[in-house]
Amino acid sequence: MSTANRQIHLVSRPQGEASVDNFKLVEAPLPALADGQVLVRHHYLSLDPYMRGRMNDAKSYAQPQPLGTTMIGGTVGVVVESRHPSFAAGDSVVGMGGWQEYSVVDGGAAGMLRRVDTTHVPLPAYLGAVGMPGVTAWYGLTQICAPKAGATVAVSAASGAVGGVVGQLAKARGCRAVGIAGGTGKCRFVTDELGFDACIDYKQHRDAKSLAAALKEAAPNGIDGYFENVGGMVLDAVLTQMNAFGRIALCGMISGYDGVPIPLSQPQLLLQSRLLLQGFIVSEHMQLWPEALKELGGAVAAGKLKYRETIAEGLAATPEAFLGLLKGRNFGKQLVKLV
Amino acid sequence: MSTANRQIHLVSRPQGEASVDNFKLVEAPLPALADGQVLVRHHYLSLDPYMRGRMNDAKSYAQPQPLGTTMIGGTVGVVVESRHPSFAAGDSVVGMGGWQEYSVVDGGAAGMLRRVDTTHVPLPAYLGAVGMPGVTAWYGLTQICAPKAGATVAVSAASGAVGGVVGQLAKARGCRAVGIAGGTGKCRFVTDELGFDACIDYKQHRDAKSLAAALKEAAPNGIDGYFENVGGMVLDAVLTQMNAFGRIALCGMISGYDGVPIPLSQPQLLLQSRLLLQGFIVSEHMQLWPEALKELGGAVAAGKLKYRETIAEGLAATPEAFLGLLKGRNFGKQLVKLV
Repeated sequence: MSTANRQIHLVSRPQGEASVDNFKLVEAPLPALADGQVLVRHHYLSLDPYMRGRMNDAKSYAQPQPLGTTMIGGTVGVVVESRHPSFAAGDSVVGMGGWQEYSVVDGGAAGMLRRVDTTHVPLPAYLGAVGMPGVTAWYGLTQICAPKAGATVAVSAASGAVGGVVGQLAKARGCRAVGIAGGTGKCRFVTDELGFDACIDYKQHRDAKSLAAALKEAAPNGIDGYFENVGGMVLDAVLTQMNAFGRIALCGMISGYDGVPIPLSQPQLLLQSRLLLQGFIVSEHMQLWPEALKELGGAVAAGKLKYRETIAEGLAATPEAFLGLLKGRNFGKQLVKLV
Repeated sequence: MSTANRQIHLVSRPQGEASVDNFKLVEAPLPALADGQVLVRHHYLSLDPYMRGRMNDAKSYAQPQPLGTTMIGGTVGVVVESRHPSFAAGDSVVGMGGWQEYSVVDGGAAGMLRRVDTTHVPLPAYLGAVGMPGVTAWYGLTQICAPKAGATVAVSAASGAVGGVVGQLAKARGCRAVGIAGGTGKCRFVTDELGFDACIDYKQHRDAKSLAAALKEAAPNGIDGYFENVGGMVLDAVLTQMNAFGRIALCGMISGYDGVPIPLSQPQLLLQSRLLLQGFIVSEHMQLWPEALKELGGAVAAGKLKYRETIAEGLAATPEAFLGLLKGRNFGKQLVKLV
């Protein structure tokens, strides 16, 4: 087995925008396995927007990432060596190994390492449509938006790992799916490949009023369920098009430059339209993951749930790929391929 | 019986602030009763903030009040003459008679006229704690905030007809009740008469940050349930003090001067604290009124649910009393006494 490992550490906190200087690639020896431990070689790293929040030292729902440690993150890989009876060398596994080539995991810790079947589902899909992003989409749509057949569901960042699944699950439930994405290429993918009924390129609209007019055309009966990944102007526009008793799953909200929050322009619409809005974090609802993963895995295996991936190559490319994700340069799920 | 009636009509829509010029007192003959109709003499008119919204010609959850017609509003009174078998002269009734001395009501129309028992509950209380404001408080607290014993519940406009009931119902459920009100007199009433654990005078705070610091002192364990009657700076401050998984019942939101909405400064807190926020209008939940009125009526009859009234005298005083309500000059439930 290998005895050297390479890791990417967070070495400083961003002042405003994150940069490559906040990260450092370091080499570290791999410790010998203790009883109960499993050594995993990572094949793919997952890059996700939530990681930007961990880089800050601010009060949030998550602990800040400590300086001088390996960045947190989801990983898929293969077991190299196991001293735990539940795992054997050669097993495909999904875990939270972080930005590094190998991880040593306590095989008995709940939820830390899960064996997965790659017969019908490709290994990296367990970081996307059949992983945390997919379950996030499933939870917000089914547990918060809870649309009936015939309802209209809208979702922002619709070409992304979460948004793309939201619209496809909505379509499978007999809903009209309206996406919002940045760029004509992404919008074409959302309608032509993912099967949404419509997609609006928000970059073609310079203010919420213009975007709202486009939404009205794409959702002529109004919006009943909205899955929010971005906030800001997009949320302002969508609120004006929500039907009475509409339901909003709040999954992600960007900030303006330098981390200053973007205000919500017309909060009175929440009252006037008697909306329900709920923020959520999918890792706090682990009891529903099996049900979600069963639907998602089945749909991917059957070729009914589609997605796209942007794949960076090699551990050293991770910081640049992550910064690109924050700027929306990825197209679908952003991964780093290590093996 | 009397054959003359006096009414207050809406004759123009406000440009910005409402004024007495938007209203006009007119005399109108009382029509003869048709079969099935009931003539009610109003003893008290209810004045409520929602009426301001009806004065506008804007898209809202309610139809605008048509110009040249009697202002809408809740009323309690006594039946003068009845041509409907369910009502008899002398019955005490609550209805939606509007800003006038008499109303002619279809006795068979669902929910238009309800006989009430004034043995243990005073007649005007059916416009307040045992009426629409009381049910509004009950609905938002029990169906949206849904606090457990030991939780902290906060409410704005805490000395008002709705807010005062929210806190007392929360106390009855074993919660800590924190009020927010405008003025030291109102705050003293909220704690000393209504039994809240604490009350903050928002007028002592010039920004959300200062108000948030006072809230932190009044709610040292954070806020689990919030009943919002005002919005603006108060909501901005409360959001910073909400506990994870907190629940917000959105009942009222003022606008800034000239009807311009007041933005919500930090919407990302809704996500970070995984809050649920829901707007509601109590008239859309009529199926729960009997349960609510049973608790409220019992509590008032037993002397356990307290409230205060501000009473204007005579129909002609109604517009001024209403404008005073919009400026917070009332103390508790604003009524107009006609008889």
